[in-house]
Amino acid sequence: MIVKAPKESLTVITDIVLPGETNPLGNLFGGELLARMDRACSIAARRHSRRIVVTASVNHVAFNKAVPVGSVVTIEAKVSRAFKSYMEIYVDVWIEDRESQHRTKVNEGIYTFVAVDETGNPVQIPQIKPETELEQIRYDGALRRKQLSLILAGKMEPNEATELKALFSES
Amino acid sequence: MIVKAPKESLTVITDIVLPGETNPLGNLFGGELLARMDRACSIAARRHSRRIVVTASVNHVAFNKAVPVGSVVTIEAKVSRAFKSYMEIYVDVWIEDRESQHRTKVNEGIYTFVAVDETGNPVQIPQIKPETELEQIRYDGALRRKQLSLILAGKMEPNEATELKALFSES
Amino acid sequence: MIVKAPKESLTVITDIVLPGETNPLGNLFGGELLARMDRACSIAARRHSRRIVVTASVNHVAFNKAVPVGSVVTIEAKVSRAFKSYMEIYVDVWIEDRESQHRTKVNEGIYTFVAVDETGNPVQIPQIKPETELEQIRYDGALRRKQLSLILAGKMEPNEATELKALFSES
Amino acid sequence: MIVKAPKESLTVITDIVLPGETNPLGNLFGGELLARMDRACSIAARRHSRRIVVTASVNHVAFNKAVPVGSVVTIEAKVSRAFKSYMEIYVDVWIEDRESQHRTKVNEGIYTFVAVDETGNPVQIPQIKPETELEQIRYDGALRRKQLSLILAGKMEPNEATELKALFSES
Amino acid sequence: MIVKAPKESLTVITDIVLPGETNPLGNLFGGELLARMDRACSIAARRHSRRIVVTASVNHVAFNKAVPVGSVVTIEAKVSRAFKSYMEIYVDVWIEDRESQHRTKVNEGIYTFVAVDETGNPVQIPQIKPETELEQIRYDGALRRKQLSLILAGKMEPNEATELKALFSES
Amino acid sequence: MIVKAPKESLTVITDIVLPGETNPLGNLFGGELLARMDRACSIAARRHSRRIVVTASVNHVAFNKAVPVGSVVTIEAKVSRAFKSYMEIYVDVWIEDRESQHRTKVNEGIYTFVAVDETGNPVQIPQIKPETELEQIRYDGALRRKQLSLILAGKMEPNEATELKALFSES
Repeated sequence: MIVKAPKESLTVITDIVLPGETNPLGNLFGGELLARMDRACSIAARRHSRRIVVTASVNHVAFNKAVPVGSVVTIEAKVSRAFKSYMEIYVDVWIEDRESQHRTKVNEGIYTFVAVDETGNPVQIPQIKPETELEQIRYDGALRRKQLSLILAGKMEPNEATELKALFSES
Repeated sequence: MIVKAPKESLTVITDIVLPGETNPLGNLFGGELLARMDRACSIAARRHSRRIVVTASVNHVAFNKAVPVGSVVTIEAKVSRAFKSYMEIYVDVWIEDRESQHRTKVNEGIYTFVAVDETGNPVQIPQIKPETELEQIRYDGALRRKQLSLILAGKMEPNEATELKALFSES
Repeated sequence: MIVKAPKESLTVITDIVLPGETNPLGNLFGGELLARMDRACSIAARRHSRRIVVTASVNHVAFNKAVPVGSVVTIEAKVSRAFKSYMEIYVDVWIEDRESQHRTKVNEGIYTFVAVDETGNPVQIPQIKPETELEQIRYDGALRRKQLSLILAGKMEPNEATELKALFSES
Repeated sequence: MIVKAPKESLTVITDIVLPGETNPLGNLFGGELLARMDRACSIAARRHSRRIVVTASVNHVAFNKAVPVGSVVTIEAKVSRAFKSYMEIYVDVWIEDRESQHRTKVNEGIYTFVAVDETGNPVQIPQIKPETELEQIRYDGALRRKQLSLILAGKMEPNEATELKALFSES
Repeated sequence: MIVKAPKESLTVITDIVLPGETNPLGNLFGGELLARMDRACSIAARRHSRRIVVTASVNHVAFNKAVPVGSVVTIEAKVSRAFKSYMEIYVDVWIEDRESQHRTKVNEGIYTFVAVDETGNPVQIPQIKPETELEQIRYDGALRRKQLSLILAGKMEPNEATELKALFSES
Repeated sequence: MIVKAPKESLTVITDIVLPGETNPLGNLFGGELLARMDRACSIAARRHSRRIVVTASVNHVAFNKAVPVGSVVTIEAKVSRAFKSYMEIYVDVWIEDRESQHRTKVNEGIYTFVAVDETGNPVQIPQIKPETELEQIRYDGALRRKQLSLILAGKMEPNEATELKALFSES
């Protein structure tokens, strides 16, 4: 079984917000940002799996701060965990102050991609071995999110979701 | 307290998939679909609240089937539940067979929007009273999703999440 | 001969006007609106005929009111009359006031599409049976517009245009 | 009263059809062509009037031939006649064969623009004096089209439309 | 050997700057202008060679003046010199004052294209015979630019660059 | 005088080539690539100068290999040398093989940007101190390119261009 580090799939998209990409409030249009995040995640998934990849789901994207026109936006995506043919990708979005170069986190998201062969069938992919503390936290959380996703889709019984059950029985 | 039905915010975007909107496999590019869903949800949120609205989060989007170039895609968004100034919007995506006009569901998503005043401060919005069975199911689920979201964000303790706790203790 | 109602081809495109779609006066760029109307009409024509359809002509589009950035625009298209392989589609464009939800008509247009088979040859399509008073008015007008179009193209003599001739001889 | 020749407003847009501008049949998307024609006409109207101009109506656009991806498309627009603050612009669209450089007409259209001052009020514009035979034909036709337009809009009685009445009474 | 005049490849793209094409300062985004210039040059190269053409290099583009939103921009491209299968295209960019119609040059550029056959192999193309004084100056300069390009790419020794050597030895 | 390393301005744009960004041969449209390179260079210039920056010129862009649809393209831009208020930015473009992850260089370019204050006047910027061998080579070349640019613009006599003169007198 091949095992890879998250950093091997790191994908960076830096870009500037032009007026043609804004909403009527003068900030980056949310749908445009979702599309750019999808692009970053698909490349990270491809770099990890070296396969054709397709978006399976967007698990969560939180918009914490508006991104004004003219901002320099940096999107960083890395595979956080791999399951058979599915990958969870964590994506962070930052803007930077032009004068101080101070970075502010504006948004983060979790996407899931599946790796397929030329005929569209899912194929097995390398596993992930987290290296940093943050990568470990995201790796651990990925299993809980997967179980939750299966429950919500009616494909798993709550009592089989060991990770989630523990979370609530502890409380 | 004003109470409105989900259908009062129903928003329909019908469109055709042109080659300029596809991915290299010849299907609608996932990011483009996310952007169109965001547009539909923002209009539904605006129709419910009659306020300026901004995307707060994308809670879940599942891509079940690829959407080939040339498809007619129908996106239908409706507010499923309102909390103070936040709204959850449920969005369904369909394609239709040209010859039989049979519709196939390809995708569904849940977005959250917040209503704000001219200075950007959150404002209170009308409540939702579901009318159909499906609207009731989505209305009920919205509370569980909200609690889960707060837990994941570290803003609620698992033992306060009564709805979720019940889900797992039953099992 | 199959006969269908206009409502069976009803196509709704709701969308918001982003800054990237405006003209230098800050209103929706006319060409962008023409393109969206073309998309709506092509889907209505496809739904009526269940065939591949191509734009034959734009017969008339009247821009009555400017559409400011941030507006929610609703485009509604329905087949108004069918002739052998040609269809006339009537399209109405509305904006809505965010606070009152009052709708204002900003624009209307008439497009003609032709239905073709896989090799590009015109094919016969179902007829239209109008149901509402407005649909009847548009249905009746379609014949006059068709005769006028043929005269302008030099494919019909004015004295053969019975509908048009009546209009002017009455006066 | 200032009088100008149509050629003084001649506007040429040459462009190549990229895959991102096609419909699912691999030809230039009709809506995209309508948008480009609108751009050409607006510049011609501005060059004639030297004023801010806005689209008033699209009177007719005939799509005679499909425009395949990779085609070089030439759009030529000229003011055909001016009425107080309104202008009719005639626009012709050509493609050219790469090897023989032979030009084929694929499309023509008639747009109407109105010239306004900084506050949006219509302003008087120079008249047109046609120079070529084709310009004269289009100049003459413009009056008939204007009367027809007024009748269709219910702003003129058929018996006042002297030009049109003649057309049908002769027959 | 076929010889053609620069004017036979003249390509004109006139267009208006919409808000969706601007940078955060409200002027035409430089990258957008580079793309439009590339389109104009590729058509000029195709008209001269009557072949499939691909961009080989951008030799120089000087941005002298900003182009504000709402400007009418005219791009004029002509082949300045041909070498075997390569062509140098000179492109000038102008804006015009709406009221006076006075033209101001804002930008000029030099692009190189190569003509290829259906299999992508370079093919021989007609030569250029300049007709105006400006065309002659640009024709002469093209050889110096070509030698410089070869030196910078390490494909020519400085002492072989007769044209350039003369320039510096004279001084 | 502040001195910075090129790596402090490093800007990375990774992206995938979608069908809507291709030319009729199915490769990334050259103009689109020029626009993306311009975006990368403008961000690098902004990061170095911490000022508003505008494109001054494109000095050279060489298209060595076509970039097929579906490619993952990485654009890397770094300031190579600074002169008073002008910066030269070197930009490299790579594609990567999906299976082997082997990178191939497809394109490189040199852009010049100027840093301005809020009123559009040029302002002084930090100097560059190259750190790697490649950065040193590009730093040295920047002076020759600047002199050449001034000569071509008629703003410097060839005999003042010490760097260039040496190049040819040596030969």
